[in-house]
Amino acid sequence: MSEFSPGLEGVLAAKTEISMVDGQNGRLVYRGGYTISDLYENCTFEEIAHLLWFGELPTEGELEDTKRRLAAKRALNQSAKAALAALPRDTDPMDVLRTVISAQGAAKELQKPDIEQAIAMTAVMATGLAAAYRHSRGEEPIEPRDDLGHAANCLYMAFGEVDERKAKYLDSYLVLLADHGMNASTFTARVVASTNSDLCSAVVAAIGALKGPAHGAAALEAMNMLEKIGSPDNVEPWMRAALDRKEKLFGFGHRIYRTDDPRAKILRPLTSEANPDFYAIASKGEEVALRLLHERHPERPQATNVDYYSAGLLAAAGLPKTFFTLAFATSRVAGWTAHVLEQVKLNRIIRPDSEYVGPEPHPVRPLREREKAPTA
Amino acid sequence: MSEFSPGLEGVLAAKTEISMVDGQNGRLVYRGGYTISDLYENCTFEEIAHLLWFGELPTEGELEDTKRRLAAKRALNQSAKAALAALPRDTDPMDVLRTVISAQGAAKELQKPDIEQAIAMTAVMATGLAAAYRHSRGEEPIEPRDDLGHAANCLYMAFGEVDERKAKYLDSYLVLLADHGMNASTFTARVVASTNSDLCSAVVAAIGALKGPAHGAAALEAMNMLEKIGSPDNVEPWMRAALDRKEKLFGFGHRIYRTDDPRAKILRPLTSEANPDFYAIASKGEEVALRLLHERHPERPQATNVDYYSAGLLAAAGLPKTFFTLAFATSRVAGWTAHVLEQVKLNRIIRPDSEYVGPEPHPVRPLREREKAPTA
Repeated sequence: MSEFSPGLEGVLAAKTEISMVDGQNGRLVYRGGYTISDLYENCTFEEIAHLLWFGELPTEGELEDTKRRLAAKRALNQSAKAALAALPRDTDPMDVLRTVISAQGAAKELQKPDIEQAIAMTAVMATGLAAAYRHSRGEEPIEPRDDLGHAANCLYMAFGEVDERKAKYLDSYLVLLADHGMNASTFTARVVASTNSDLCSAVVAAIGALKGPAHGAAALEAMNMLEKIGSPDNVEPWMRAALDRKEKLFGFGHRIYRTDDPRAKILRPLTSEANPDFYAIASKGEEVALRLLHERHPERPQATNVDYYSAGLLAAAGLPKTFFTLAFATSRVAGWTAHVLEQVKLNRIIRPDSEYVGPEPHPVRPLREREKAPTA
Repeated sequence: MSEFSPGLEGVLAAKTEISMVDGQNGRLVYRGGYTISDLYENCTFEEIAHLLWFGELPTEGELEDTKRRLAAKRALNQSAKAALAALPRDTDPMDVLRTVISAQGAAKELQKPDIEQAIAMTAVMATGLAAAYRHSRGEEPIEPRDDLGHAANCLYMAFGEVDERKAKYLDSYLVLLADHGMNASTFTARVVASTNSDLCSAVVAAIGALKGPAHGAAALEAMNMLEKIGSPDNVEPWMRAALDRKEKLFGFGHRIYRTDDPRAKILRPLTSEANPDFYAIASKGEEVALRLLHERHPERPQATNVDYYSAGLLAAAGLPKTFFTLAFATSRVAGWTAHVLEQVKLNRIIRPDSEYVGPEPHPVRPLREREKAPTA
């Protein structure tokens, strides 16, 4: 047995074609060998999803086909609508999404994951986001439109109107977050799929993992932090006090990147244009946070991660902060499903070992005798 | 980075007090240092759940308290009932369970996993099983009774009657399956919890992993196999033909046990008494399967695993085979929740690495140029 590596850090869990996180060089490469900066300049989310599923960027004809197939799978079914309607309005939106997607994907019998299901799960995640948003406001869901792109339709289903500028912000976000190596939610999806379970079960499990503040909820936490700070003038005293209280500054540092997160480099100027008010405090926050973190831990590489400026971009797209993690799921589901399709081909269960560190085996004392002489 | 170990075999993912699977000696030890055979002789499921959560077998007073707390959390809430009612009757029962438990555990805000939630999730899993069973027959759920033990109440909610003998069979099953080291569903629950997500998300994810035929659905597959064989006389020709077709014989072999699965040793005589018709064909099937597998692979250790005789015991408790995996979840949820509580204390995300094996980075060709010179 290998040495124990807490958190499985440095443990190789898969060889994958879906993406490469090159921490040393600050590069994120998606399937086919394309860097995130190139993809951001050239592609919509639908092209990225096609790339992650099929292994190559689509031609114009292929893209039309993938867009048509996605648009055809946008509607929530009756089970999902009823599950949504029965949840209290003030339910955590991630719990709403988890339940709605589980109901949507409930099937008569076990199906092996395939591209058709990957498309359906990806299409409906945006609908789940929008429906959860409307439900939180006590509003009925809006049926999808098949003449809109994925991001534009998502915002239309949430807000009832089409805004090209906001749709572009959301689309950029969806492109940037669609995959990222063996993160915790993607790994969760692969473990579930490795038992030969179905795609919906894998995606629902991944939603649960993404919900955690140590993973998908970091943009929400970054926004919470900046709201507490309130103004650029308050950045330095607030952050100094937070670090003195041993609190974490959300939006900085990453387990893998030893230099800039390439997505943060794209998001910084984009958010500056999309959300100047947010940018005013966030850019000051970034400057101060990196300086203070370096003062305290000069030995640690510190850089702004994807979550920090994401918060401002998603706000500019119109989303309240409690829906940021749902936007993350709406993007990452393309990667989750691509990873599941790759995992299924391996036909091998993921089952690591554990080491028992409890007491040596000894006899059971019958119930009635347990009070008399308790175990030390 | 470590050597690549497909399926993470031999990779240590956790040090745990919850259980030890001692493959070399054919022992299963639950928390506190108790062997499964001792626990089976002395304990009910409620005692086992208490042991896994609190670290020691309960005194009589503690057991009463745990039983009372479990009984108080048996009812489905309105969200769960509505989600159930909206699913088609012929939905895969594991998809029903996944959706009902997700709705049941939907909360207003993120909660850190605690014992109270572990008790609630464990209590309601049995209700989910019973409600899914009744739903499949077009029947309304039966409200739980708090004067019955966990197993007896589960069967009461499913069938509307109390049968002490059947309840004892189910209780024995629940004791035997409650934990088993770092299996795929338990690992899934721990990965989800490692992101600081909530207990319900971890349990829902684990249900998805358990659903896979390579994990929780193996008892169902064993029953399917024995039904196809049909009679003791047909065992040997059927199994020879199946092996010639390179098909798997369900119920034999285990990644960890190199000798008898200790649970199979307990289940064999128990199932012989509980379900003689099943036992007649299953015991013949075991003798033939082990002989044929040894003939073909003399180098491999082969032994009957827990799933094989479980099938007959669960059938004797009155459950149709399509609900076997739900019974597994009803037992294992005690282990899942104990593992999550242990994982949460570590406060460390589980995030292994992956190795990119796709093409080297190269530029993106704009959409309109992709048709002209397709990539090789």
